[in-house]
This record gives sequence, structure tokens and C-alpha cells, in this order.
Amino acid sequence: MLTLYSFGPGANSLKPMLALYEKGLEFEHVLLNPAKFEHHSDWFKQINPRGQVPALSDRGRIITESTVICEYLEDEHPTDVRLRPNNSYDTAMMRIWTKWVDEYFCWCVSTIGWHRMVGNMVKHLSDEEFEEKLKAIPIPEQQVKWRRAREGFPQDMLDEEMRKVGVSVRRLDDHLAGNEWLAGGIYSLADICNFAIANGMQFGFKELVNADDTPHLLRWIEQINERPAVKAMFASVPREKFEPEKA
Amino acid sequence: MLTLYSFGPGANSLKPMLALYEKGLEFEHVLLNPAKFEHHSDWFKQINPRGQVPALSDRGRIITESTVICEYLEDEHPTDVRLRPNNSYDTAMMRIWTKWVDEYFCWCVSTIGWHRMVGNMVKHLSDEEFEEKLKAIPIPEQQVKWRRAREGFPQDMLDEEMRKVGVSVRRLDDHLAGNEWLAGGIYSLADICNFAIANGMQFGFKELVNADDTPHLLRWIEQINERPAVKAMFASVPREKFEPEKA
Repeated sequence: MLTLYSFGPGANSLKPMLALYEKGLEFEHVLLNPAKFEHHSDWFKQINPRGQVPALSDRGRIITESTVICEYLEDEHPTDVRLRPNNSYDTAMMRIWTKWVDEYFCWCVSTIGWHRMVGNMVKHLSDEEFEEKLKAIPIPEQQVKWRRAREGFPQDMLDEEMRKVGVSVRRLDDHLAGNEWLAGGIYSLADICNFAIANGMQFGFKELVNADDTPHLLRWIEQINERPAVKAMFASVPREKFEPEKA
Repeated sequence: MLTLYSFGPGANSLKPMLALYEKGLEFEHVLLNPAKFEHHSDWFKQINPRGQVPALSDRGRIITESTVICEYLEDEHPTDVRLRPNNSYDTAMMRIWTKWVDEYFCWCVSTIGWHRMVGNMVKHLSDEEFEEKLKAIPIPEQQVKWRRAREGFPQDMLDEEMRKVGVSVRRLDDHLAGNEWLAGGIYSLADICNFAIANGMQFGFKELVNADDTPHLLRWIEQINERPAVKAMFASVPREKFEPEKA
């Protein structure tokens, strides 16, 4: 019995969610609402003491870290749909791409996302209410990020992160100009993990991701959005469920 | 035919080097000298355009990123010595540990290391000579790090990184208090990748890593140093080869 704890089909939560859909694995989906800080609640910290989604429970054993969960699904529940190349070299290339998401691409996009959206989730709170929420966050670096999001990130940090977003989309577009998929000639976890961050940038970062500047990246985003598993994944969660709470 | 390009048995270079020794795989070892900026030379950037060690060549194909190389060796050259648990759950736990090294532990220790040692490698250079060296570095973030190392890192950054070093050694010691090895009850890539960073901290960070405060971490460091493969690895590279260049 598989249970996924997630925020729904976006960012890191999307990675294992899409892997489950692509592989046709049945799972129970427990949706947490970030605007209600449900991932910092005591019941969830019993599941992941770090208070982070996604987390997967497989017959009662918990696996955390989105990329690790994806490889775990491949190891433990291969099914007919394989999301990892069938040779060591291409698998290494796939891992270089998934590692790059976790260490670079996801962070720069995330900081801009926090600046634009997460700050609004906490601006209606009084100082006391906000400090109370912070106390429940187990990771000090996450506390700092929430504080910065509420106060506003420093402009030089935002500029530097936007520079990195630019580097990232350039790297993806250049690679996809000569390759249908990111690694090993097949749709793999490299694509899923990068799509988790890149999808939506054609709207939220349209000055960078558009038909003129990044046609190959756009082609790849659209191609993935056409996949039946991707459509089924998005259809499974009503969008209004994740509108930020009204103050 | 395997060829490893590395700085020798320390930090990220140690990871694939020790994996090769443990698995008894023959390889040619090309040592680069960081003090001579050999990793930023044109010949090496033909091998890894990012100008970073370690890199592995396997029958002419290049694999980069220390942790990815370690998993590649396990996939492509399993041999009788396995450095990955034999089940999916423990493998996931191993990956959480290796990922933590790459995203947290290695960075805080590295910044302190750069502050103490790398800065000295470039202090004797004139501004012009230094700028010339920087031009050869392909990664902008690495240029920033070299610049900071030469000028001196800001004290608040050093304080924050030391806090993280403290969190890291506490986490390792707590886990090793109840476990001989980090993941799955066996000596694995989790141990090798953490040892790459932790070994030597009993000297360089002895206010944090010592018999009173972190007895279990110390036990584990010593236990790994007793392994025949580890002794052979250290014996293979003369220490004086990596004394920083005299100005």
C-alpha cells in the first residue's frame, strides 16, 4: 500500500506524483495545504520530522526527498513503465540532471516563487501569529526563508536568483535543441524532475521562457503536458483546493 | 579502461577514489594540482567543461559529479564488493545521506576550508595574475568563491557555516550512536561520501569532533581509517605532492 503526502502537482511534490501516474501505480494521496502550514503540524512531523513534503509511505515505511522517492519507485516498483535508462552511462547522465534540479534549478526558481507568492500567505498574520507558525518549523534554514518571504527578499538576492533562472532555462533549451529528452534518448526521471520546476514558467517567467527565446524548452514542456499520465495527474486535484487562504 | 581525474584522497575526489579501491577496480589515476589551477586548464576542460574534479573516464566516456560516479561504479562495475544495500528501502536511506553531503555537509565544511587554506593559495598573486586565473573558471559561482576566499569571507557567513558544521557533526554522531554504519547496516556509499568530508575534522575541527562531544563519530572515522582499502588509497599518493605551492 502506497501513500503519497504532497502539496499536489507542482514543484517537488510533482516529481513522485507524476512518477506514480506514469508507472500506473495505485496510491492513496494525502494532500496537505501549505497555506494552512499543514506540513508543520505535529501529525505530519510524525511522518517526516523535517516537516517537508513530499513523503511516501510504502507498507508503513517512510521515504522522503522527492528525487530519492522517484528512484525508490523505480527500484521497488519497476512495473512495465521504466523511467530510468537501461544502461549505467545514461543513468548517470539522468542523475546529473536530477541532481542539478535539486542543487541549482529548483532553488533559484523557488526563491522567486516565494518572493511572489509565499510572502502573501503570511502577510495577513500579526507578528505574534507569524512567530507562532515559525516555531513549528523544524529546519532553521526554512525559518529564515519564511522570515525573508514575509519581509521581502533583498533585491540583490532576487537579482542573483533571476540570473540563475536565466542560466537554467538557457541550459535546458540548448540541450533540448538537439535532444528530444534530457537523458539517454528516453522520457525519464530527468525529464520529470526538470518538468516539476519548468512547467508553468511559460506563464510565470514568460520574459525568459517563450517561443522566441526558448523554442525547444517550450516544445518539451508542451510535449510532456500532452502525456495521458500528466493530464490524469493534473485532473486528479481540483485547482481551487490550492488557492491561498483568504485572510 | 578506467581513468580517474582527481585532487587525490580528500573531499569530493576521495569518494570515487575510495569506491574504486574498495571494489578492487584497476584504474589510471591522473592527479591534478589545485594550487596550480590545473582543473581550469584547457586540456582538462576538454574532459569536464565545468572545470571540476573528480571526473571518471570509462572506455572514453566521461562521468562527472562525485556521487553520480560512485553510483555509476556500482551499476557498471559491481564486482564482489557491493557498496549499496541490497534492498530498495535501505538504498533510499543511503541516498538521503549522500544527498545530504552534497547539499549541506560538504558546503559548510568547504567554506571554512576555503577560508583557512584556499585563500592562501592566491594571496601571493597580483591582482592582474588573479584576474587572469579567474577568467579560466567556467562556473560564475566558483569565481565568486575564489574572490571571497582571496578577500576573506564575511564574518557572518563564516559564523553561519560554523553553525551548520555543528549541526552536521551532531547529526552524524547521534545516528552513529545507535548504528555501526549510516545506512542499511552495511558499509556503503553513505559512509564513503560522508567520510570524504568528515575525515580530518578530528584535527581541523577538534573543538567539535572529539572523544567527549562526538565519540561515535570519532569511532566511525577511526574504524574506516583501519580498512585496508582506505590505507592503500592514502598510501598511493605522496602527501608532499599536495603541499600548496610556495610563492
